[in-house]
Amino acid sequence: MEKLTVIKVGGKIVEEEDTLQRLLDDFTAIEGHKVLVHGGGRSATKLAARLGIESQMVNGRRITDADMLQIVTMVYGGLVNKNIVAGLQARGVNALGLTGADMDVIRSAKRPLKDGVDYGFVGDVRQVDGSRLSSLIRQGIVPVMAPLTHDGEGHILNTNADTIAGETAKGLAPFFDVALVFCFEKKGVLRDENDEDSVIPTLTPEDFRRYVADGTIQGGMIPKLENSFEALKAGVSQVVITSAAALGSGSGTRILQYK
Amino acid sequence: MEKLTVIKVGGKIVEEEDTLQRLLDDFTAIEGHKVLVHGGGRSATKLAARLGIESQMVNGRRITDADMLQIVTMVYGGLVNKNIVAGLQARGVNALGLTGADMDVIRSAKRPLKDGVDYGFVGDVRQVDGSRLSSLIRQGIVPVMAPLTHDGEGHILNTNADTIAGETAKGLAPFFDVALVFCFEKKGVLRDENDEDSVIPTLTPEDFRRYVADGTIQGGMIPKLENSFEALKAGVSQVVITSAAALGSGSGTRILQYK
Repeated sequence: MEKLTVIKVGGKIVEEEDTLQRLLDDFTAIEGHKVLVHGGGRSATKLAARLGIESQMVNGRRITDADMLQIVTMVYGGLVNKNIVAGLQARGVNALGLTGADMDVIRSAKRPLKDGVDYGFVGDVRQVDGSRLSSLIRQGIVPVMAPLTHDGEGHILNTNADTIAGETAKGLAPFFDVALVFCFEKKGVLRDENDEDSVIPTLTPEDFRRYVADGTIQGGMIPKLENSFEALKAGVSQVVITSAAALGSGSGTRILQYK
Repeated sequence: MEKLTVIKVGGKIVEEEDTLQRLLDDFTAIEGHKVLVHGGGRSATKLAARLGIESQMVNGRRITDADMLQIVTMVYGGLVNKNIVAGLQARGVNALGLTGADMDVIRSAKRPLKDGVDYGFVGDVRQVDGSRLSSLIRQGIVPVMAPLTHDGEGHILNTNADTIAGETAKGLAPFFDVALVFCFEKKGVLRDENDEDSVIPTLTPEDFRRYVADGTIQGGMIPKLENSFEALKAGVSQVVITSAAALGSGSGTRILQYK
């Protein structure tokens, strides 16, 4: 099968002009089929603050009321997405910006109350149209995916970008030999968060449970790793967690399945 | 050749919830291949005002400085576009939101100083990829186009929605039998702006020049009609100016070429 790389980049990298340009250069250099999934949370929080709207987070997830939904639709689907698309086009990459609503590529269901928390207009992914995406990709198109989905009933829903990346990788696994790369600020999963060079080179589900139990792994890294193990189970060939600066270098933490 | 309808709807219609829902119903009912081009100026002006940014207009065209470019990218490419796409998907129309940057479908050049006016980040259309668009359309996709283009050097440019509609219709004319419909608040081009029923049924370039000279036709209608005549010259089969409410009814002003 042909190779395909799904790369997820966090908000901070795509929201600052110099790190964005560097990322787009690195992404352009990646050979073969590829998909970029981006965040944009910091810009959304900033715009919300300028409009006098408070950003409420629970367990690192944004509460998305009607006002906040408008903001993330503007920031993720418009500002961040279109700047990336234009930047890639300038580098000869035939990018196409997508939300889940576009061509119905990702459908989700509004999250029900969870532990008494109403996350608002937040979508849990139900279905990825891997066939449609793979057909575009085979035509030389590079999808650039914003963390927005739709419910099929006319509503845009805010959806975690790590989840979009994981689900997209899974949806494309029947069509390509898929590598999933999560880029963030650190060089990988760290054994000691104060030591940038303490990258854990490989991580099995067993290691993961141990590190969560002893507090080495915590916060937003937990769902990222859960997504990673699920992706491997669903047929994704490899998952790597690394820094945007190390993109393509092969360094970082490699996630492994049980043998 | 197969028929295709390019419909341009003004900002007001897509920005108010009830008129938008009605428009999406009417658009869904149109048979055959179709493309929707939308505006969004009122929402952009409103968001700018909430952020303390003044909207400057010259001859009905928006001056787009760096701040305003961010706003139109968010509002046109994000908010308005994605709401339309989600609304059409809910109606079973396989919509795909596009700016000119996406798949490089519309490339433009930053407008040079014109009569001493610097319009800022405004693009004049240079090239429409009718072949790429027609290939998507033949796959059952319905493009929903935001009034944004790119310069191929990494910059999004604000572009008049009437122009996008006219240029898209021209770009698709080699592939389809194209009808171009401009929808706005009035029932058509009016002989007397205070009489809603004074619709001019047909308009030739000769009529147009006469009506401009005597002041019957003025303001934003002038470039709209200039776009219309150009579209006909470039192979578009028919151009109609009508109200969104009359979409599909066949009423309105029909634009004619010289015999």
